[in-house]
Amino acid sequence: MKKYPRVVIVGAGFGGLQTARSLANKEVEVVLIDRNNYNTFIPLLYQVATAQLAPEQVAVPIRTLLRRAANTKFLRAEVTQIDFVAQEIKTDINTLSYDFLVLATGSRSQFLNVSGAEKYTFPLKTLNQAIRLRNHLLSCFEQAAVTNNQIERSQLLTIAIVGGGATGVELAGSLIELITNSLRRDYPQLNPQEVRVLLLQSGDRLFREFPQPLGDYTAKKLRRLGVKVMLGSKVVAVSPEGLELDDATKIATSTVIWAVGVEGAIPRCFPFPEKKQQRQINVLPTLQLIDHPQVFAIGDLARIPSHQKSLSGVAPEALQQGVYVASTIRRQIQGKRVKPFKYFNKGRLAIIGCYSGIGQIAGLPLKGFLPWLFWLAVHVVYVPDWRNRLIIFLTWLHNYLIGDRPSRLIL
Amino acid sequence: MKKYPRVVIVGAGFGGLQTARSLANKEVEVVLIDRNNYNTFIPLLYQVATAQLAPEQVAVPIRTLLRRAANTKFLRAEVTQIDFVAQEIKTDINTLSYDFLVLATGSRSQFLNVSGAEKYTFPLKTLNQAIRLRNHLLSCFEQAAVTNNQIERSQLLTIAIVGGGATGVELAGSLIELITNSLRRDYPQLNPQEVRVLLLQSGDRLFREFPQPLGDYTAKKLRRLGVKVMLGSKVVAVSPEGLELDDATKIATSTVIWAVGVEGAIPRCFPFPEKKQQRQINVLPTLQLIDHPQVFAIGDLARIPSHQKSLSGVAPEALQQGVYVASTIRRQIQGKRVKPFKYFNKGRLAIIGCYSGIGQIAGLPLKGFLPWLFWLAVHVVYVPDWRNRLIIFLTWLHNYLIGDRPSRLIL
Repeated sequence: MKKYPRVVIVGAGFGGLQTARSLANKEVEVVLIDRNNYNTFIPLLYQVATAQLAPEQVAVPIRTLLRRAANTKFLRAEVTQIDFVAQEIKTDINTLSYDFLVLATGSRSQFLNVSGAEKYTFPLKTLNQAIRLRNHLLSCFEQAAVTNNQIERSQLLTIAIVGGGATGVELAGSLIELITNSLRRDYPQLNPQEVRVLLLQSGDRLFREFPQPLGDYTAKKLRRLGVKVMLGSKVVAVSPEGLELDDATKIATSTVIWAVGVEGAIPRCFPFPEKKQQRQINVLPTLQLIDHPQVFAIGDLARIPSHQKSLSGVAPEALQQGVYVASTIRRQIQGKRVKPFKYFNKGRLAIIGCYSGIGQIAGLPLKGFLPWLFWLAVHVVYVPDWRNRLIIFLTWLHNYLIGDRPSRLIL
Repeated sequence: MKKYPRVVIVGAGFGGLQTARSLANKEVEVVLIDRNNYNTFIPLLYQVATAQLAPEQVAVPIRTLLRRAANTKFLRAEVTQIDFVAQEIKTDINTLSYDFLVLATGSRSQFLNVSGAEKYTFPLKTLNQAIRLRNHLLSCFEQAAVTNNQIERSQLLTIAIVGGGATGVELAGSLIELITNSLRRDYPQLNPQEVRVLLLQSGDRLFREFPQPLGDYTAKKLRRLGVKVMLGSKVVAVSPEGLELDDATKIATSTVIWAVGVEGAIPRCFPFPEKKQQRQINVLPTLQLIDHPQVFAIGDLARIPSHQKSLSGVAPEALQQGVYVASTIRRQIQGKRVKPFKYFNKGRLAIIGCYSGIGQIAGLPLKGFLPWLFWLAVHVVYVPDWRNRLIIFLTWLHNYLIGDRPSRLIL
């Protein structure tokens, strides 16, 4: 039997998994490495945090997704060393040589040197973080229901979200839905006026990736729903008691959600040629590492310095890069010329909640019910498993028809 | 407004929850206490452990179930002290006086003084234990897939279940389904012959609560499915390497599931009149405590010493006791005479797996496909939430039509 070139892929998120799927049953041997045995559908994590979806519905076992790929092995491991010269990668359980290496480890929260942020805030980049946030939010309500101390109760019922991008806005809207639909009915003894959802944005507008009018629409909409949108509010410190802004305002809250600041999740062992830490890995327009044409970095991890702006950090881009890298590796094997990666922007959507969304498709700005519905449709379609697709669809139907959140377990 | 007598219920399992539901909107004030904010449908826990159902599908937030009960409050707390004389109960967050007290804390695993059992086995009485067992089983397969050490691999792929009652048998059958349907496809590199499921029973037959022929049928069926049924095998010690039987046989295994030995989960602070520890709380035929007519104990926690055999420990009995205690409390308030509790046995069913079950209805023994189907139907109907009912139904349909287990996440 002919020995095929081995492609090792690190990270089974949108980019890494897509690379593996595009290489399925092709003339390569594929090893996909991830520290978790499941792929997380990150755009829906906030719905796990707000008890709308169960964790099982936004995660799929990786082995299920790879069953038909006879040339692909999955390895649940943590990468501990990468040697670009020997073309070898070490994990906590074994050592693998590679012919091609695809780094697709995604991004992690960056705490921007805000004191206490790493320790006391709730980021929302992984499934475990989403479950932790859900447990915490529900526990705050349980505690608020039994305390007679008004200051403590107000602190427990104040939820601050730092960051006015997609995650922050989506969380704010979803929290309002959770509170209005479920928690008010669960806790009749609590005064709805005491529950506060704050959305803090350091800049002067929400959704910087969309045109100004859409950001304004979002802020107006969120305010109408009851979110306190605080523009120009820069957080400088977080403690167990609350947070502090740069104008010395203090906000007492038990829950600070960190929805700002993302950096490439560069493996700690990554051998930087420049001998200095960076937030992303610099790549050529072909997504290859500058001195190592057989090594690729894709998704949130990668940055093309020659482009004016860094890559957009959205799932469709990572997916397209996965397809591109798979095809580029095959071209390299066949001795063909490698073309640069081009991102085809199909448009962008974001959901505000309560039947509102915004979007930009083919340059056309959209707002209101239509982008809300588009958003739900697109996300159901992109969930990589038809069973989860069906359950998510049914859950949303139930959610919007009956207005309830089923997954309110404190585990 | 007239002040109603207060009924405090400790434990929101089958019995406690049913008591609360039967007292909903009646002329009493109800406080239901549980350490978790959800009710667990214990008979389906084994399906969480074997990745068939998501945890969210066998648990329902208690507040959801009590929404229409205006006279009922839920308190998420741990009971720390009970004073029968002052009629007062202390929790970790407050103190409550009661007019009536219903103790319904269920049961917990009893390790029968087997050395190492408490530390190294996996019991299956709570949702967290089920998730822990699922994580462990899947991790064993992940580890087995990468090890080259044959002894280690065999240990990782041997699963021992201690106890040949309903939990043990159901787990054994469900594990075989998990292995046959999902894991063989997930781990093509593993030899199916290496995976072993052992069911150890100290007595000479399975299912002592059913007639002998049904126990024999179960053993035959399980053996045909590939379970190694080991009768007359008494476990005397458990260690991280495996277990030891009383005939000094050693079995190397990474997974010992403890499905035997149950005792009433008597609150640690329970003031026993006899000044000695017991396995259950003795009650009168009216389920009242002997010296305290306003205190009831129900479900797995309670035992009527005047009956030949202790209560049967099945969910229908706890449910009937809940209804009974609610009505008895109302009779006491109205000054009416209290009648003893009578259990109406509707019959009993158990599932073996792979389309087989056994049962006894109106004295009639059943085996094969029919009791299997009955079992599924009865359990779907008894799940206390129509949404979970639908998802469980769809999951089973998917499971038996497509033959796959979707929830294989290591969280």
